[in-house]
Amino acid sequence: MSKITVLGAGAWGTSFGQVLADAGNDVTMWAIEPDIVEDIRDRRRNEARLPVVEQLPANMTATGDRAEAVADAQIIIVAIAAQFARVALTEFKGLIPADAIVVSLMKGIERGTNKRMDEVVRETLDLPADRFAAVSGPNLSKEIAQRHPAATVVACESLDNARKVAEACTTDYFKAFVTTDVIGLEMCGSLKNVIALAVGMARGAGYGENTAAMIETRGLAELTALGQAAGADPKTFAGLAGVGDLIATCGSPLSRNYTFGANLGKGMSVQEATEASNGVAEGVPTTDAVVALGKELGVPTPLAYAMSRVLDEGISCSQMLTLLFGRDITEE
Amino acid sequence: MSKITVLGAGAWGTSFGQVLADAGNDVTMWAIEPDIVEDIRDRRRNEARLPVVEQLPANMTATGDRAEAVADAQIIIVAIAAQFARVALTEFKGLIPADAIVVSLMKGIERGTNKRMDEVVRETLDLPADRFAAVSGPNLSKEIAQRHPAATVVACESLDNARKVAEACTTDYFKAFVTTDVIGLEMCGSLKNVIALAVGMARGAGYGENTAAMIETRGLAELTALGQAAGADPKTFAGLAGVGDLIATCGSPLSRNYTFGANLGKGMSVQEATEASNGVAEGVPTTDAVVALGKELGVPTPLAYAMSRVLDEGISCSQMLTLLFGRDITEE
Repeated sequence: MSKITVLGAGAWGTSFGQVLADAGNDVTMWAIEPDIVEDIRDRRRNEARLPVVEQLPANMTATGDRAEAVADAQIIIVAIAAQFARVALTEFKGLIPADAIVVSLMKGIERGTNKRMDEVVRETLDLPADRFAAVSGPNLSKEIAQRHPAATVVACESLDNARKVAEACTTDYFKAFVTTDVIGLEMCGSLKNVIALAVGMARGAGYGENTAAMIETRGLAELTALGQAAGADPKTFAGLAGVGDLIATCGSPLSRNYTFGANLGKGMSVQEATEASNGVAEGVPTTDAVVALGKELGVPTPLAYAMSRVLDEGISCSQMLTLLFGRDITEE
Repeated sequence: MSKITVLGAGAWGTSFGQVLADAGNDVTMWAIEPDIVEDIRDRRRNEARLPVVEQLPANMTATGDRAEAVADAQIIIVAIAAQFARVALTEFKGLIPADAIVVSLMKGIERGTNKRMDEVVRETLDLPADRFAAVSGPNLSKEIAQRHPAATVVACESLDNARKVAEACTTDYFKAFVTTDVIGLEMCGSLKNVIALAVGMARGAGYGENTAAMIETRGLAELTALGQAAGADPKTFAGLAGVGDLIATCGSPLSRNYTFGANLGKGMSVQEATEASNGVAEGVPTTDAVVALGKELGVPTPLAYAMSRVLDEGISCSQMLTLLFGRDITEE
C-alpha cells in the first residue's frame, strides 16, 4: 500500500486514480480547478470530467495544494493535457520526493519542440531515466471507470520500477504488463493519432471494416518501421500499447481524431472540421511530425504523407487512398 | 487478360469474381446449384448469395459443367466451404489444365484430419506447391462487392505466380500484396476464429473496446508464436492477413463466430448457442485444434485454452479472462 498522487483530474487521470484506489493505495488527486477538488474530496464525485462514476472509492481524496499533494508520495502520476505538461510541471519542480517514481499517462508530442512526453517530463522535473515510467494501452477512460476488464503496459528503463508501478495498479479487472521500451511506448501513443485521423476519414466517406482494417494495418507497419529506426522495439508496436491501443482508438467513434477525420471524409474543409470540433485534433500537428521524423530517419511514411496532402491541399479520401497504394505489386 | 474460373458462387467467390472481372479478365463462375448458375449467366445477378450487387459485370458468366468451367483457365479460384473442399475438388481432378494456378479463398481447418486448406487442395488435385496460391486479408465480401477500397495478400511459394494472381485481381479499389509465406497466411485465416469467438463473448457480456482490443492483441501474439513454431513468418501475422483480417472480422458483428461468442457471453450454453446459430461456428472445433497444435509445438496457448474451458465446462466470460491473465506481472 502506497501513497500515490495523480496530477490532473481529467477523465483518464480520475479513472486511473480509481484503479489505484481499487488496488488498495491511498490516492490523492491534485487539480488546478477548485470545484473539481471540492467535488472529489467532499462528494467523492467528479461530475465535470467523469460523470459516469457515481461514487469514487473512499481511499481517494483531492487537494489543490501542490506541496501537500506530492509530499510523501511514492508514485506520482502525471495526467495533464500534453500541450500543458511543461508549464504545469514546472510548478512542481523541487516538490517531488527524491525517490518517487513519476509516471506519465500523457500521449502526444509537444508542439514547437516535437518532443515526446518522457523528454518533457524528465527535462522539466530534472528526473533520471530510472525514475520515469509511462503507461499506455487500449484504455478508453470511460470503460476503465466502469471497471470493464482491460490491460495496459508500464514502461521504465528500470524493470524493477516498472514492476512497482504495475503492482500498484493491478486489480481484478486491470492487468499491467512491463517493458523497458519507453521510446516505443511513447511513439505508439502519440503517432497512432495520424492513423485514427485516416480511419475516421474513411468512415466519414462511407467505407466499412475492410478499409479501416487496411489503413490500421498499413499505418501500424509504417509506425513500426519508424520506431525501429528511432531505437524502439518493434514488439511494442505489436503489443497492447501499439496495435491494442490502435484497435480501441479506431473502434471508438467518440475520439477527437476520429471525429475530425470523419468530418473531413464527409467533405468538410480542414477549417470547417476545426470549427466543428472546437479546435484542431492532436493528429493534425502529429501528421507533420511523422513526415518530418520519416525524412530525418530515412523511413518512408506513405500514410502520414497522404494525410499531410489531405490537410494541406484538401485531397479527397479516395485520392488519399490512391496515393497510399501505388499500382506496383510489392511484398507487404 | 486471362480466362479465370471461380469454383463456388457464394458471397466471397462471387465478390472476388467481380474484382477479377473489374480487372479486365473473362470470368466464369462454376456452381453446383443450377438456379445460381442461371441467375448469374442469364440475369447477371446472384440474388441468393450476393443480393447487394444489382448487376454483375458483363465479362462474367457461369456454368454448371465442370469440364467446361475449367477448360483453358489460366487461374482457377476455389471458393467452396472449407469442410466440403475435398469432396468438391475430387470431381475436378484430371480436368485442371496442366499449367493453371489454383488459388484458395477458403479459410478453415479440415475436421477429422486437422489439415490446412493448402494441404487439402494440393492433395486432392495432386498439385505442386508452386501452382498453389492462397488469398487472405481484411476482405468482408459484402464490402468488396460494393467496391469499397480494400487490400489483400496473395501467398505462393513461387513469388512469380503470386504476382500473376495479384496482377489478375488489381483494380482501382482492390490492392494485392504478395508473399511466399503460405503456411502463415493459412494459419492466420483459420486460427483467428478462436479470437473472434472470444471477442464476441466479451461483447455479449457487455464489455467494450478495451476488452476487445486486449483479447485481439493477446490472441494475435499467441497465434504469432504458434505460427513461428510451425515455420511461418511472424510478419504475416502483423500484416493484412493477420492483424488486418482480425480487425475486420472482430469489427463486424455479423460474422458467425462473433455471434456465436456473443450468445455465450449473454449466458447461453454451448448447446443453446449452437441451436441459435443453426450449427456450430468454425471457431469451436478450431479452438481444440489450436490447443492441440500448441501442445505439439510446445507453445503456450492461454486464450485457446481459456476458450476450450468455456466450450467444455461453460465457464463465464469473467472466469475466462481471469484464466487468461494470472496475477503475475510479466513482460508482454
